[in-house]
Amino acid sequence: MIQGFDPRTGQPTGLELPETDRAGVDAAVAAALEAGRAWRGAPAEERARVLEAVADALTARAEELWPLADRETALGEVRLRGEIGRSAGQFRFFAQVIRDGGYAEAIIDHADTSLTPPKPDVRRMLRPLPGVVGVFAASNFPFAFSVAGGDVASALAAGCPVVVKAHPGHPGTSELTASVIRSALPSADLLGLVQGMESGAWLVQHPSVSAVGFTGSVPGGKAIQALIDERPEPIPFFGELGSVNPVVVLPSARREGLAQGFAASLTLGSGQFCTNPGLVFAPEDVVKEFAEAVSASTGTPMLSSRIRDGYTSGVERLSSLTLLATGQAGEGAWAVEPRLFTTDLDSFAAQLPAVAEECFGPSSIVVTYRDVSDLPGVLARLEGSLTATVHATDPAEAAPLVEVLARTAGRLVWNGWPTGVAVTWAMHHGGPWPSATTTFTSVGATAIARWLAPTAYQDWPAELLPQELQDSNPLGVPQRVDGVLSR
Amino acid sequence: MIQGFDPRTGQPTGLELPETDRAGVDAAVAAALEAGRAWRGAPAEERARVLEAVADALTARAEELWPLADRETALGEVRLRGEIGRSAGQFRFFAQVIRDGGYAEAIIDHADTSLTPPKPDVRRMLRPLPGVVGVFAASNFPFAFSVAGGDVASALAAGCPVVVKAHPGHPGTSELTASVIRSALPSADLLGLVQGMESGAWLVQHPSVSAVGFTGSVPGGKAIQALIDERPEPIPFFGELGSVNPVVVLPSARREGLAQGFAASLTLGSGQFCTNPGLVFAPEDVVKEFAEAVSASTGTPMLSSRIRDGYTSGVERLSSLTLLATGQAGEGAWAVEPRLFTTDLDSFAAQLPAVAEECFGPSSIVVTYRDVSDLPGVLARLEGSLTATVHATDPAEAAPLVEVLARTAGRLVWNGWPTGVAVTWAMHHGGPWPSATTTFTSVGATAIARWLAPTAYQDWPAELLPQELQDSNPLGVPQRVDGVLSR
Repeated sequence: MIQGFDPRTGQPTGLELPETDRAGVDAAVAAALEAGRAWRGAPAEERARVLEAVADALTARAEELWPLADRETALGEVRLRGEIGRSAGQFRFFAQVIRDGGYAEAIIDHADTSLTPPKPDVRRMLRPLPGVVGVFAASNFPFAFSVAGGDVASALAAGCPVVVKAHPGHPGTSELTASVIRSALPSADLLGLVQGMESGAWLVQHPSVSAVGFTGSVPGGKAIQALIDERPEPIPFFGELGSVNPVVVLPSARREGLAQGFAASLTLGSGQFCTNPGLVFAPEDVVKEFAEAVSASTGTPMLSSRIRDGYTSGVERLSSLTLLATGQAGEGAWAVEPRLFTTDLDSFAAQLPAVAEECFGPSSIVVTYRDVSDLPGVLARLEGSLTATVHATDPAEAAPLVEVLARTAGRLVWNGWPTGVAVTWAMHHGGPWPSATTTFTSVGATAIARWLAPTAYQDWPAELLPQELQDSNPLGVPQRVDGVLSR
Repeated sequence: MIQGFDPRTGQPTGLELPETDRAGVDAAVAAALEAGRAWRGAPAEERARVLEAVADALTARAEELWPLADRETALGEVRLRGEIGRSAGQFRFFAQVIRDGGYAEAIIDHADTSLTPPKPDVRRMLRPLPGVVGVFAASNFPFAFSVAGGDVASALAAGCPVVVKAHPGHPGTSELTASVIRSALPSADLLGLVQGMESGAWLVQHPSVSAVGFTGSVPGGKAIQALIDERPEPIPFFGELGSVNPVVVLPSARREGLAQGFAASLTLGSGQFCTNPGLVFAPEDVVKEFAEAVSASTGTPMLSSRIRDGYTSGVERLSSLTLLATGQAGEGAWAVEPRLFTTDLDSFAAQLPAVAEECFGPSSIVVTYRDVSDLPGVLARLEGSLTATVHATDPAEAAPLVEVLARTAGRLVWNGWPTGVAVTWAMHHGGPWPSATTTFTSVGATAIARWLAPTAYQDWPAELLPQELQDSNPLGVPQRVDGVLSR
């Protein structure tokens, strides 16, 4: 059975829920596949209206959703209301994305029979993957990376039915969220929900599942990839895994507010963000203020005893470094103390790669350096991250670092903190392994591309072509026609 | 040692070449990586001019290239001259693609500080993968899918250095082609070439290799995937593997020229095309003419004794079917007879999936049907193909098949034959497993996307942004600005 727990008390909360058995997974996938037939064929405008209805339903039911999620995650009203808003906003955003139509990448090449060999008429666009999308919900965002998350919103927007494997950290929230979303869908079967670890294993091996989205740990991601590798037909695995998110404070960086900004980013949500700043390279003169800021910080309960235990052993792993500061644990059964460690650049480099492994939670390492020119060689040895941040007032000082940082991370942040991930057209939330398993993103407009595949139509009769590929362009989507992009 | 053979005589041709040892692979990758530093940073216009110089060099040296390739492949002057032209054309085409700049998918979202939370300035574009691209050349196109092929052209266009593992079927042609291409590159090291099976295994496991392109068989592709799976850091594997390319002749199809078109497509290049029409669903009335056309056809030598042996056993595997026609083997040590088999739809369906496995070479099966409505159920059970073709004069007759064919194949062809693959903006040469390992294409403008990954820049200073992401858009590339696509 699946049981939610209250991180403030460590005690069970809510009803026990049955684990989904194999037959249950089969039924959810089969129902989703069947409901998907109409959905994938529905015009973008129709899908967009449904996505907006989902956003409305989430907003309308926020009063029910956040208290339940708060009991299961202890993330608090403000954060959870904000997260429901983010989730609703994401559904609205993907409605915009599919109305725009550029996501389909319509390309039309007219025939040219004067050439040898003659060039046929070829038209290509992206269409939804044929089967069901499997999504693994994350622990740390019970709405925005869970049943109401970006994977689900982008897959539905693409035209794919979805089956979500709920995260055991918020099973009740998952069930309620699914029922709220289903109330706005043309068929409730478009969104399946399964509970329990084994259900996830069956899901990724199901012959009708065409792709899998996942947000979680490196070991979790590797386990799912291994299961997918056993399939007779491989399918894409879009995993967003671990990330240390290096921050480089350059000598020219403005010191005002720097330490406070760092501590706030570090301890946000008890440090349970994929984009948590786990590693800071800084001149020695900032160390004292960073230490003071972390000492003054107060932790909040972590999401589960398993995550709390992981943090505890992660922090122990760093005990060879100098402990610079310890914050307050704060209230709650699973509350932990924020920690800040320090070491110098040479010593850090000598302990790579182990020292730079992600420690999920409010812990970070300040690596002090003396000469900016020593940084690129060490930065080049870091594993892939979702983000890399530079603090500086002088861009010229940062110039020698840009290329190495762009090879290390998928998003480069200037004079900010990596923990916020805006849902916009340009956002990229991905990066080199192990931060992501592919070059795709899980946040932002292009997240929809994960659930699409191209079809080319050669000399195909106009009456059988999708609207996006017709010369008259009835939907007004961006088309590249004979090499020229236009709307 | 690596030795080329003349398919007309079965005898060795050209010098023996040493197999590249591990140190040789390391050296080629290291040199490519180093040469790639300048290349990936070079402006698109500069890369475009180099690609055009490569095209010029290939064209200028055609008189040397085709006779050498002919000795190693027996594909003949006309075909090989055409293929050099195709290869040169492909380099020119990718010059156009990178000058256009749309391939970089530049997206700019300006900041909006009035929102809660405030929206940062985020700019995203695709940039070359950080390391070296490994390419496995194919047997059947000694230029267009080999050292001068689309994988190399698109990877260089993307800004990536390349190391090619030569195909053992044309080792001398590979060496000469590499030297011709290098003569036009700013650094010869940008294009490495390694010989021998083991060199390929080292190549895909090399830590500096970021992606692998491959055109070949399903077992070959699986073997490379298994090697990649052993890497500590996974990398994308873009394999274009087997395909049977179903053709559906509907009752309304024009009969004139149909059988001749089929036989020509079937026997082109001795059937050694990934897009060879290996399976035809047709009404019984066309069978006789198809049989006559194949009987009247003459084969040419296959590319190697291994491929010839594979064809022979493939044809034996089909001996449970009715042999409908046998063409002439033609001249040459490794020449084979074209074969046409037949069976009815029920019997075919009963023998799935084995009966529909690709038999590489000039062999096909005509599956006769009586009722069009029986087709979708059987078509749905076929494995993925690169193409699916419909012959009909009445689009309405084909309408019930479009969705199932679009799930089966990456390119749908109307009243044509699948063997030609035009290099255009819209071409898609890919499809569901096993025809391809990903949703990407190996031919056409979007083939470049395989070698690119997104980087997002948040609140990044203008002086450190790539030109493609600057507000002034100095290169005039397509940009999506605040959600609106424009040039």
